[in-house]
Amino acid sequence: MYYRLFLILFSLFLGGPLYAQEVEQWGRFELILREKSPKNAFTRVTLTAEFSTGDTTYAVSGFYDGNDTFKIRFMPQKTGKWTYRTTSSIAGLNNRKGTFTCVKATKGNFGIVRVSDTYNFSYANGKAYYPFGTTAYAWTHMGKGTQEITLSTLKKSGFNKLRMCVFPKNYELVKEEPELFPFTVRELKKDAAGKDQVVWDFDTFNPAFFQHLEKRVDDLDKLGIEADLILFHPYDKGRWGFDAMPNEVNIRYLNYLIARLASYKNVWWSVANEWDYVKSKTVEDWDLLAKTIARNDPYGHLCSIHGATATYYDYRNPAFTHVSIQDETPVQSPNAAAMLRHIYHKPIISDEVGYEGNLKSRWGRYSPEEMTYLVWNGVLGGTYVTHGECYMVNPSDTIFWAKGGEFKGTSWKRIAFLRTILEAFPTPLRLSDVSRDNVTATAGDGYYLVYFGKHMMENWLFNLPAKNDVYKKLTAGVRFKVELIDTWDMTIQTHPQLFETASENDYRLFDKELKKVKLPLKPYMALRITEIK
Amino acid sequence: MYYRLFLILFSLFLGGPLYAQEVEQWGRFELILREKSPKNAFTRVTLTAEFSTGDTTYAVSGFYDGNDTFKIRFMPQKTGKWTYRTTSSIAGLNNRKGTFTCVKATKGNFGIVRVSDTYNFSYANGKAYYPFGTTAYAWTHMGKGTQEITLSTLKKSGFNKLRMCVFPKNYELVKEEPELFPFTVRELKKDAAGKDQVVWDFDTFNPAFFQHLEKRVDDLDKLGIEADLILFHPYDKGRWGFDAMPNEVNIRYLNYLIARLASYKNVWWSVANEWDYVKSKTVEDWDLLAKTIARNDPYGHLCSIHGATATYYDYRNPAFTHVSIQDETPVQSPNAAAMLRHIYHKPIISDEVGYEGNLKSRWGRYSPEEMTYLVWNGVLGGTYVTHGECYMVNPSDTIFWAKGGEFKGTSWKRIAFLRTILEAFPTPLRLSDVSRDNVTATAGDGYYLVYFGKHMMENWLFNLPAKNDVYKKLTAGVRFKVELIDTWDMTIQTHPQLFETASENDYRLFDKELKKVKLPLKPYMALRITEIK
Repeated sequence: MYYRLFLILFSLFLGGPLYAQEVEQWGRFELILREKSPKNAFTRVTLTAEFSTGDTTYAVSGFYDGNDTFKIRFMPQKTGKWTYRTTSSIAGLNNRKGTFTCVKATKGNFGIVRVSDTYNFSYANGKAYYPFGTTAYAWTHMGKGTQEITLSTLKKSGFNKLRMCVFPKNYELVKEEPELFPFTVRELKKDAAGKDQVVWDFDTFNPAFFQHLEKRVDDLDKLGIEADLILFHPYDKGRWGFDAMPNEVNIRYLNYLIARLASYKNVWWSVANEWDYVKSKTVEDWDLLAKTIARNDPYGHLCSIHGATATYYDYRNPAFTHVSIQDETPVQSPNAAAMLRHIYHKPIISDEVGYEGNLKSRWGRYSPEEMTYLVWNGVLGGTYVTHGECYMVNPSDTIFWAKGGEFKGTSWKRIAFLRTILEAFPTPLRLSDVSRDNVTATAGDGYYLVYFGKHMMENWLFNLPAKNDVYKKLTAGVRFKVELIDTWDMTIQTHPQLFETASENDYRLFDKELKKVKLPLKPYMALRITEIK
Repeated sequence: MYYRLFLILFSLFLGGPLYAQEVEQWGRFELILREKSPKNAFTRVTLTAEFSTGDTTYAVSGFYDGNDTFKIRFMPQKTGKWTYRTTSSIAGLNNRKGTFTCVKATKGNFGIVRVSDTYNFSYANGKAYYPFGTTAYAWTHMGKGTQEITLSTLKKSGFNKLRMCVFPKNYELVKEEPELFPFTVRELKKDAAGKDQVVWDFDTFNPAFFQHLEKRVDDLDKLGIEADLILFHPYDKGRWGFDAMPNEVNIRYLNYLIARLASYKNVWWSVANEWDYVKSKTVEDWDLLAKTIARNDPYGHLCSIHGATATYYDYRNPAFTHVSIQDETPVQSPNAAAMLRHIYHKPIISDEVGYEGNLKSRWGRYSPEEMTYLVWNGVLGGTYVTHGECYMVNPSDTIFWAKGGEFKGTSWKRIAFLRTILEAFPTPLRLSDVSRDNVTATAGDGYYLVYFGKHMMENWLFNLPAKNDVYKKLTAGVRFKVELIDTWDMTIQTHPQLFETASENDYRLFDKELKKVKLPLKPYMALRITEIK
């Protein structure tokens, strides 16, 4: 929104800026240069620019956008006056200079998301960001109508991250032929069976494909959703061959994507989905591709790689800002989730733990209660868990996880509810007494979240661990308010009594009168316990 | 045993060998050189030897053993004729040459233990080695009587690994003053409070200390027990200062230890216990010490480092052959244990998960049932779990975990029983259907171990996962024998019926008549399921 108007105004002066423009922090400055292009400008023209303010300089790559149009995009993060100067192998694009002013971010623009305090995330402006993501792998490759429905579905949800593939998907449940492709067609051949076979011109990107992707990334940004872009995936199976391009093409593709999209503040890079299923690439290839991104992205967007079940990449690799895994085990208990924090010392996102749905495949048929339960387990352990939905009742159903469309499930509402609980705490969660207490998380001195999972109880003897992880130990005489959270019915009720800790008794502190909290003998209950100061 | 006689014979020829000696594989060749020593031979004399056979050459350090005696020890692994030649800064020790013959290992000598198939261990002769360890941190620093009792206790146990500290231990439950120290005394001072304070001469090792340690390592070897030597630990607290020596001394100590003990085939290096509690050392220090060992140990003995609860070192470091952790979480379920395999791709040993006992500290008061249960969980997940025992009924009790002595608990017998079960399988265990099935481990095609943990059942519908990890999928028409294992009562009963798989049904294979296995409605039951071929 904030840069739209600017772009329109700016595009009127195609020869370059005539006066200093204004761009807000984490907004987008775009320099558009019209110049007669040689044959295949994608491979034969180099174009970069240096953007500077004070001591700060960024080197940014431009790109060819077709139709004799070259662009350089930049995301300023510091307010003040910026100057730029281009360098190019083409005289007309070389040594173009200009200035613009970066102004303070306006309401609703919190900046790029970064790692914060080792295990968590925050926006650049300091606001905490708790990733509550969902999955719609191929949504941008569907018909326009479905894409619009997807956006309205996301708008009413509480999700703030979306896992989505750059390349189209060829999978049992997603067979649609996309309208746009990232490369242009070199020739059409017949394969051995007489079927049409496209031979791609890997030297020639299709700007329309990327323009469409950009529009969708911007659409997500307007909804406050981070676009977790999956750059490679195995769901191709010889149909287009985008999973088996030579590394020279892979690297050119990554650099083109970075030149086009790194200035979009809500972009994350997911080097691959199920990397270990991509038979044409080795771990060395993935390392190279991850390094290419880390080296060439001027802003250091969040970056990870995602394997199949229980396949853990070496996330110690500094190219990866966080851990993005597929595994059910870590969300089987808060302790198991927390173990990954202790091993990697990076934020942990379980980006697939199975999905709510009714598919035949076991990964796509969790009950909504189970999906919600697994998200809670992971969150209690100080990690994050991504949702997905796989309902197919009629053959025409889009299955949100694959094509987007509408939600048919019910866990998404509970996850939005959990997000509000997290956002109300002063700090992110972590387990209070690691490996010993599997139900109590802390959000700082005097803030606890206790989750009973599947255990049903009529009442619970008020007790908290003495240990409170990195915070100070709990002492006697602290008074607490207790709220009963029904994580399924999404209600929060304040318990009529207050509680006050007695002295530590065998690692725990009980209420001084051994008072109990009344519970409704239902599963999925939680308690928010807050010190009264 | 096999080298004892040799040593006695050999020592008669102090000037060097007069004829070719025989040493068996993984036995010990010892060259003893008498030479007038300069003042402090420990720091001022260099002595190494090259041992060669065919294309193979080892560079081995010698050491000063006091009393004008220098020694070079070597563990030959290849049979055949070996030659050696010494190099020294002292003329009399330089260019000493000789030969010996390495003969085939005799019965009971399986060789050094090494990593095998990524996740497991085997002896050098190919025999599988399943680590079933226990803990007696300070046993070699106790009175001789206690040490002998410890050895007889171990002899009747099923343990084949012992965690033990090189340095003495100063801890609430272990206060005894040792008879021997690794360094000699430089001076005795009075501290501020008028108490005697020893100032160690870090330039002068005390050979008697190390000779005693060597004897104990050999004693363990005779019992088939690997000595997991803990090289540094935090349980000193200013009493002796061995946890806070400068790195120059740490490195000299490691090299002296390697020169003396690397030829002992049953030695493992545990760089530290609870490394994160050693306040005087940084991660860089530990990396340096680990690297020192990896670089200077000619044989590449097993090496790891052990942190406090849930403190995971970077075990990807190539200096570490395996993962040695302290954490309860991985043994809370087989899946959680297996997760560590998937992350580290090295053998996993949970070297502390808490101990059976009756201490006040929560890590030292597990019931024997709980200790056994945690070991089973870890083993089912394809990892290994170390036992420890912490009973203190009378103040004079030695607490095996600390001082050795006698076992008072009962889990050790169950762990020995589990070891026999593992050793009867053709291959080590791994989960059949990772992250999905939390009860079924496989030991290859047609071999399963199912463990129900705390679940009590009257019967169990026979069913196995179709997936069998790296082995071939289970198919219809396979006939199985089922044995009911009571892991607590240590009984194995063959089920009267045979079972035969029907076709795969939703990822599982049931008996074709849906037959059930009768169970005794008790916890801690397991099934050994074996194909009838």
